[in-house]
Order: sequence, then structure tokens, then C-alpha cells
Amino acid sequence: LGRTYPREICSISRALEVVGERWTLLILRDAVTGITRYEDFRASLGIATNILSARLSLLCEEGVMERDGDGGYALTEKGKAIGPTLFALMKWGDRFYPTEHGAPRRTLHRDCGGEVEQLHRCVACGAEVDLGSLEVPLITAFAGARDD
Amino acid sequence: LGRTYPREICSISRALEVVGERWTLLILRDAVTGITRYEDFRASLGIATNILSARLSLLCEEGVMERDGDGGYALTEKGKAIGPTLFALMKWGDRFYPTEHGAPRRTLHRDCGGEVEQLHRCVACGAEVDLGSLEVPLITAFAGARDD
Repeated sequence: LGRTYPREICSISRALEVVGERWTLLILRDAVTGITRYEDFRASLGIATNILSARLSLLCEEGVMERDGDGGYALTEKGKAIGPTLFALMKWGDRFYPTEHGAPRRTLHRDCGGEVEQLHRCVACGAEVDLGSLEVPLITAFAGARDD
Repeated sequence: LGRTYPREICSISRALEVVGERWTLLILRDAVTGITRYEDFRASLGIATNILSARLSLLCEEGVMERDGDGGYALTEKGKAIGPTLFALMKWGDRFYPTEHGAPRRTLHRDCGGEVEQLHRCVACGAEVDLGSLEVPLITAFAGARDD
């Protein structure tokens, strides 16, 4: 399988071309938690060095991570912006694949210690939106285009 | 590579064991947009039938999708709950990999037509939380455990 999903007018496809490889989201998870050094990624993930190297190289090429000048790898702003995806995956895993003790980690607001939740809100009316009430129309430039 | 990420006390890992395979999130994206029939998934994704069959079988085994009694496949509640992950990936792709016309799709509130955003909020103090202000401590049962 190639790395691209051709013919797709879809931001999910394009995002997955960069972060959809096996291990990539776990590398980014580790980076969010403060891991920077190649050897620490390797120890945390237990993956083959050639795979880890390939993933880190791609992430640097795409500007998701960058060399930190200390022999390590750091998230760029683009890399940090994957946070909501990791948050959503974590909550889905917490809910449907908990450990015997429940969710292994909490998500707490540093300032007050409260639990943090992810939600969707309409910027026009301010309502909290269930994703069942979401419409995702193609913009005019693609109206009539096949969405694949 | 096996399908599991051993030794991980991590909901992201466990979520990715189910939805982290190549194509799986795109199958779920298609399902969210209303595709149910095998042939329509195949036409939309352009993937090999053996891969599509394997992905759909795993999703059914895991209770993410189910046979809809009409020869097709439908999302379960568990499947619909992957919505926030798809939303987050879409917004990341919109921002960093737009088309020449910008983001290809809008995310609109069905009730009022306003744009919908994803955000994080503290349930204790009500503040909107930047993920840079998030703490993700292990629960007590795992305190002292190695998080890999």
C-alpha cells in the first residue's frame, strides 16, 4: 500500500497520510509527554530502530517534529496541534477498552485540578453540539466533485 | 508487526489496536457519512477486497460496526463514538494540509447552520483549557508502574 489515498477531497485522508502510519501517533503521544531522545522513544515503544528512524524522519520532513539541537526531537506547533486527536483517542480507549482499574490516566486542568472534557460547540448559537447534529458539506469549489 | 502494543498502560495504544490499522479510520469516516454497503466502501476507498473484508470483520468483532440486516454494515454506538477523533483529524488536516481552495468541507450545526468547533473545558472551573495546560497523571493503581 502506498502512503497516499488518491482522489480524496478529504482532510482526514490527508492527515492520515502523515500521522496514519503505525506507531506514528504513539511517537507523538510520547513526545507530548516530554520524551525527546531517540533512545527513549525506542525504549518506550519497543519498536525496531529502522521503523522508528523512518517515522521520525517523516515527521521532521512534514514539520510535525524538529531536531531540538540537543540530539533529540521536539514537537513543532503543528505537532502540538495533534493534541485533540490524541485526547479523543484516549477517551475512546478509556471508555471502551479500560483496564481492570478503569481508565489508566486522568485528564486534569493544571490550574485547578478539575477533569477536562472534550466537546463540540456551535460558534454561532453557542450550543453544545452532539456530532449526530453535524453537517459536513463540501465547499462550493468542490460541489459536484466526486468525494473520493 | 503484531497488532498489539504490549506492556502499555495507555488508552491511546488500546484504541489504536482497533482503529489504528491503515484504512480503518477512513472506513469509519465513510460509515459516518452514511455508507453501509460493502461495494460502496470499496468504490469510495479503492482498496483491495481482502483488506476491506479484514477491516470490516475486525470492526464487527470489536463491536464498532455491526451487520445491518440488509447486507450492509452500520456503526454501533461504540463506532459513532469515534466521531471526535475523526473531527480532530479533519481539523488538523484542514489547517495543515488544505486544498488549493482551503478546507474542503465545513462542519456546521444542523440546527442553526453555524460553524462547529472542538474544544476542551474544565468541568470544575468551567474554563476553556488549552491542551498545554493538561496534566495526565496515572491513576493510583498504576502509580509506580512503568508506563510502557
